[in-house]
Amino acid sequence: MDRDLPRIKDRPTLEKFHKILASELEQFDREYRETLRSDVFLVDQVISYLVQRKGKRIRPILTFLAAKLFGDVSLRCIKAAIVVELLHVATLVHDDVVDEAPVRRGFPTINNVWRNKVAVLVGDYVLAKSLTGMLDLRDLAVFDVLSGTAKRMSRGELLQIAKVRKLDITEDVYLDMIADKTASLLSACCELGAMTTDGQSRDREILRTFGEKVGIAFQIRDDVLDFVGVQSLFGKQIGRDVREQKITLPLIHAFQQADSSESKDVLRQIKRGLTRGDIGKIVEFVTRYRGIEYADDLARRYADEAKRLLSGFPPTPSLELLLEFSDYLVSRNK
Amino acid sequence: MDRDLPRIKDRPTLEKFHKILASELEQFDREYRETLRSDVFLVDQVISYLVQRKGKRIRPILTFLAAKLFGDVSLRCIKAAIVVELLHVATLVHDDVVDEAPVRRGFPTINNVWRNKVAVLVGDYVLAKSLTGMLDLRDLAVFDVLSGTAKRMSRGELLQIAKVRKLDITEDVYLDMIADKTASLLSACCELGAMTTDGQSRDREILRTFGEKVGIAFQIRDDVLDFVGVQSLFGKQIGRDVREQKITLPLIHAFQQADSSESKDVLRQIKRGLTRGDIGKIVEFVTRYRGIEYADDLARRYADEAKRLLSGFPPTPSLELLLEFSDYLVSRNK
Repeated sequence: MDRDLPRIKDRPTLEKFHKILASELEQFDREYRETLRSDVFLVDQVISYLVQRKGKRIRPILTFLAAKLFGDVSLRCIKAAIVVELLHVATLVHDDVVDEAPVRRGFPTINNVWRNKVAVLVGDYVLAKSLTGMLDLRDLAVFDVLSGTAKRMSRGELLQIAKVRKLDITEDVYLDMIADKTASLLSACCELGAMTTDGQSRDREILRTFGEKVGIAFQIRDDVLDFVGVQSLFGKQIGRDVREQKITLPLIHAFQQADSSESKDVLRQIKRGLTRGDIGKIVEFVTRYRGIEYADDLARRYADEAKRLLSGFPPTPSLELLLEFSDYLVSRNK
Repeated sequence: MDRDLPRIKDRPTLEKFHKILASELEQFDREYRETLRSDVFLVDQVISYLVQRKGKRIRPILTFLAAKLFGDVSLRCIKAAIVVELLHVATLVHDDVVDEAPVRRGFPTINNVWRNKVAVLVGDYVLAKSLTGMLDLRDLAVFDVLSGTAKRMSRGELLQIAKVRKLDITEDVYLDMIADKTASLLSACCELGAMTTDGQSRDREILRTFGEKVGIAFQIRDDVLDFVGVQSLFGKQIGRDVREQKITLPLIHAFQQADSSESKDVLRQIKRGLTRGDIGKIVEFVTRYRGIEYADDLARRYADEAKRLLSGFPPTPSLELLLEFSDYLVSRNK
């Protein structure tokens, strides 16, 4: 059976972290729901739908694990994690409008169930709640971390659609883009974890860089999963990114390796718009030039660099967990 | 000629305020453009397009006039006005997506020129800039004003589309909605004007309430203008609100006055969707039940209440200007 294979057995599972952080996550969920409550019926309906689908809660887990390096997860830490999660969820809601996505993680998107206008405004509502939650923390240093993050996330999103229009993305631009779009928020999680406990300013800096590198690794793995993920009726579909003309690392690498006429052919095909049937050909192209291995290898290297940054910390169980979670982020299968 | 008619002659014009505040507005424009600059080419293109169309700049004018009651317009005051304007512009950009508006104030909207996805993300970018600008002011009291405003604006927008779906809006709900959607920001302008000069806490409170009432009056007049505005090739079109199934005060009043079977007929027509040709019938219905006069009268009463709040202030030229601007807001023709 699969679970007896060593490779699978060694791979950390998300469930483990959900279990270890059960009480923190429970408090997080409760406060999170409370924060989003609205007296406008339509909003409350949409929000209920939104909070039912909890997602993997990677950002709060990372925040709590970072905090545990320095002390207990405080109420402030949970509130900071909520602000981050609200920022994350708001961008997801807007992204689904931007991508015209009908489904996310097996559930119809808000823009699908209620139309675009509701999704745009509910996204803004969640952003406003994130702002209020942030200000409730009454800490200028925390504000600066979060405002810098919001600016970077917005830049990353815009860089993505700007490059998408031209399909001329290089590996450097790709890394720059995912750093802003994704890693900035994971970096903030780690830094806030240190800031809401007894982390010193040197610790803050290390955790910030750790989170940045882990975040880049996480997004690369996410982009790999778009090529290798399991296709199911309700789950994530393979090749969704490339169908939306998002060019990610596995494909960028294949373009670099292939001769220019073959690359141009594939690019022309993508520009024309891919049918579901064309996806197989793109996956074959990426596979032939070992784009998956290349990307996974780079993700692994970012994760390893991140882990090395923590080598000066005492080898506590908390450190062990955070390192293990970094492994999870680059080895996860969904 | 028109300008010799006393009624027209007495009516304050926007140009007057632009002239009096020329140096403040020039500095405002310069800092505003600087704030929005981006290193992503697409963004810079969209932003250039956005800043070219300055709009009426009602919010900065109100902020500066409020400030002048207590002292000079400081750099802090200009920066606060920029944060407010960014918040306002971000909601306009998102509103145009929500309303699927092809044109705003005679220019194609961003969602029209670049598509929805660009408009959603550029709106988020402007919001992020507003957040950074706010945090640069390093003043918790200012943060609280702005965060409360952001929350109210979002609630107002959502209340609007929730009610639009049902078309069951009463005068009370309408007033509640425009207070949140529009008046909250004009209220913030006035309060921030006082806060960035020598206004005392009692002044702040008065200015906040003044701005709230003036803001309600402003929005009612805006909604009236949708029924009486001049229809031109590029300008605002009459009946745009009702075509988008937004039920505003002139129509609400007509519904109250008409007998229930006539109201039901009109409502059914609106629900079915109006052609441009149907608009005339709706305007006739509103006119017959004196909806325009009723709404204008209520706007005037709100503006008068607002002005009375300032009766305790010394009768300086600055006070005179602020009172005159309140008159402009409820008598303007576009």
